[in-house]
Amino acid sequence: MDHTKFTLDENEMPKKWYNILADMGPMDPPLNPATNEPIKPEELEPLFAKELIKQEMSTKRYLDIPEEVLDIYKLWRPSPLYRAHRLEKVLDTPAKIYYKHEGVSPAGSHKPNTSIAQTYYNMKEGTERITTETGAGQWGSALSLACNYFDIECKVYMVRSSFEQKPYRKSLINLWGASVIPSPSQDTQFGRKILEDFPDTSGSLGIAISEAVEDAALHDNTKYALGSVLNHVMLHQTVIGLEAQKQFEMAEDYPDVVIGCCGGGSNLAGVSFPFIKDKIDGKHDPKIIAVEPSACPTLNSGEFKYDYGDMAKMTPLLKMYTLGYDFIPPAIHAGGLRYHGCSPLVSKLVADGMMDATTYHQVEVFEAGVTFARSEGIAAAPESNHAIKCAIDEALKCKESGEEKTILFNLSGHGHFDMFSYDKYFKGELSNE
Amino acid sequence: MDHTKFTLDENEMPKKWYNILADMGPMDPPLNPATNEPIKPEELEPLFAKELIKQEMSTKRYLDIPEEVLDIYKLWRPSPLYRAHRLEKVLDTPAKIYYKHEGVSPAGSHKPNTSIAQTYYNMKEGTERITTETGAGQWGSALSLACNYFDIECKVYMVRSSFEQKPYRKSLINLWGASVIPSPSQDTQFGRKILEDFPDTSGSLGIAISEAVEDAALHDNTKYALGSVLNHVMLHQTVIGLEAQKQFEMAEDYPDVVIGCCGGGSNLAGVSFPFIKDKIDGKHDPKIIAVEPSACPTLNSGEFKYDYGDMAKMTPLLKMYTLGYDFIPPAIHAGGLRYHGCSPLVSKLVADGMMDATTYHQVEVFEAGVTFARSEGIAAAPESNHAIKCAIDEALKCKESGEEKTILFNLSGHGHFDMFSYDKYFKGELSNE
Repeated sequence: MDHTKFTLDENEMPKKWYNILADMGPMDPPLNPATNEPIKPEELEPLFAKELIKQEMSTKRYLDIPEEVLDIYKLWRPSPLYRAHRLEKVLDTPAKIYYKHEGVSPAGSHKPNTSIAQTYYNMKEGTERITTETGAGQWGSALSLACNYFDIECKVYMVRSSFEQKPYRKSLINLWGASVIPSPSQDTQFGRKILEDFPDTSGSLGIAISEAVEDAALHDNTKYALGSVLNHVMLHQTVIGLEAQKQFEMAEDYPDVVIGCCGGGSNLAGVSFPFIKDKIDGKHDPKIIAVEPSACPTLNSGEFKYDYGDMAKMTPLLKMYTLGYDFIPPAIHAGGLRYHGCSPLVSKLVADGMMDATTYHQVEVFEAGVTFARSEGIAAAPESNHAIKCAIDEALKCKESGEEKTILFNLSGHGHFDMFSYDKYFKGELSNE
Repeated sequence: MDHTKFTLDENEMPKKWYNILADMGPMDPPLNPATNEPIKPEELEPLFAKELIKQEMSTKRYLDIPEEVLDIYKLWRPSPLYRAHRLEKVLDTPAKIYYKHEGVSPAGSHKPNTSIAQTYYNMKEGTERITTETGAGQWGSALSLACNYFDIECKVYMVRSSFEQKPYRKSLINLWGASVIPSPSQDTQFGRKILEDFPDTSGSLGIAISEAVEDAALHDNTKYALGSVLNHVMLHQTVIGLEAQKQFEMAEDYPDVVIGCCGGGSNLAGVSFPFIKDKIDGKHDPKIIAVEPSACPTLNSGEFKYDYGDMAKMTPLLKMYTLGYDFIPPAIHAGGLRYHGCSPLVSKLVADGMMDATTYHQVEVFEAGVTFARSEGIAAAPESNHAIKCAIDEALKCKESGEEKTILFNLSGHGHFDMFSYDKYFKGELSNE
């Protein structure tokens, strides 16, 4: 059998992130929600470290990864690139399927790639406390891990439906020293208002963001951190695709299709942007696919327009695909994909035809996850199962056409804290909302 | 900073297991429980595949790992050897601490090293169904994963206290297609008897083994698999230590101390036997330490004598340290270490002074686990926290003495399915039973 996994030594890790802004046309700027005017960098300073604001707007093509960030990355990076021999065999496909396994990080997903970076810059600038929201809990755990390393207090507002489904995500967040409460909460003005109006709400990322932003704005030495959507987050995640490119060189192969699940867009951006650079440079022409849940089809059915990132309209207006800032998606089991908006970078790439988007219902998504677990061994996160489902479909198309395509998908995280959802799938209790 | 982790390419994986029986004096043979006479290989055939019985008794020094087993190992092996820079810094010790991370397997522990091998040989001999017991759930998941690969039906009797504490271990076992019930159960004669006499029992490995053995004995084409204790299990686990030796060559270092937690003994044997060979050969003289919970101190306080491996006295009598075949340990949170006996090989090495043994209470063990999670990032299994606690103590001794010892411990598994126990620790609800 050919190689099963392509591993790089930690010294072969990329030393720079790739900034796709350098290779895209001018972007519509974020707008101040109070004035509707393009936001000035200093207006973002109450929420973000200055260096992150600089990165948000930078058009420099490659940005150095600080030594201290690299040192922490080394705890799990470079992540392995797998050739899914066993999945290929089960599907009986001529396609070659590869996946990048981001579930090997201590927090269990790709999220620490940016939480470590964001927290590092905050530490450098004296931040003492960081607030955030979390959907599935992957981001909340990743930020807790990062704040632990830089001795920063951390408070996580966790979307209530996830909070209740995943008590042990909460335990993991606590283990690294952060505190976590269900959102909407009594701890913010906005949370209290929502609870009054909709006492039974399952919550949403839009609400939780409002709470975290309000908390950061009202407390001294407190900043806010976002786990997706923004340019600097996409930037930090490109370490995934940059590593994958080195690993494809080892494999003497190159992907025809690159797939990522898409909520705010960060893992998709991470795996695909370096390959999109090859596309822009005219070197290769891979098809890039964003996979969304049918229950929250932002790129597939949303409008491409300016919208708020949160429900309380406190964040800057971003030009992006959106289902509306007050959209509350059904409580599907891929909590990380329940966001009304999407990264402006990913949105523009879709609008420009550089990226495709597709949707799946959650039952077929879990079915794909079970096929994957029984072939490749790994219990994947419900979010990642979306990418798996799409990779399987692409491979089955090859089976029909006889094409020997090379397919890459990002396995954004493991599902060890999502077994409740697998149980529901096996009991036939998952709906296709 | 020096290297954080030493990774081998999958082609550098050891191709043979190391059989320590070749380098130890003659062992007291297992006895037939009916006759008290040394058991004949064919008397074990109702329970085990012939090839495994051969391995159990073999005195050949190196045994080939079959190609198909290697191919599955490649899904996660070679596992990384970490240098615990951050833990060293927190402890402010001159010692160098390394750990082998066996939690990277799909099942989350070292157990698949033997489950894959055992299931492979069973498949070769036509076994259609395998029964087993599981304590913490690590072994049950590992066997489920393995049976999935070789298309063998699998039934797991899970010690009731673990079954109740860890619902999601059960989900993982189901995900790979096995069935799992709490032990004692209504499914066996012995289980029903225990439930009649002790309806509130938290169960024990000794009871669960009896149930699995009874089930295997009474069903056609069904064999039994044990996740620890037996010689062939220790054999399969030596891939851990053999890899570690290659990785220490990369690190240009060699351990002065090798540590593993010890229930039945398999992860300790796996990491240490290749180093004990160096001891026997007079090449090196590392100290080997078996770490047990105070609640179940088999090597520390048990008697070295012939005893049954299970409560119903169905298994062969083994010469080992034992707390008595009917010992039911308190329901501590390291379910994998709740066994009355221990591997005859490990027992003899302790009796011969080749290995030391020590104990810790569970509160200090979890405290060590939290220190580890906050320095190295990884949420470890409660069992592994015993090894971590011992490594920390050894490093702190070096701090006092100024010695720059090299310490290796085996991180036998992650704790993603044990967060309930961490919650109890943080709430101050863990007793030191």
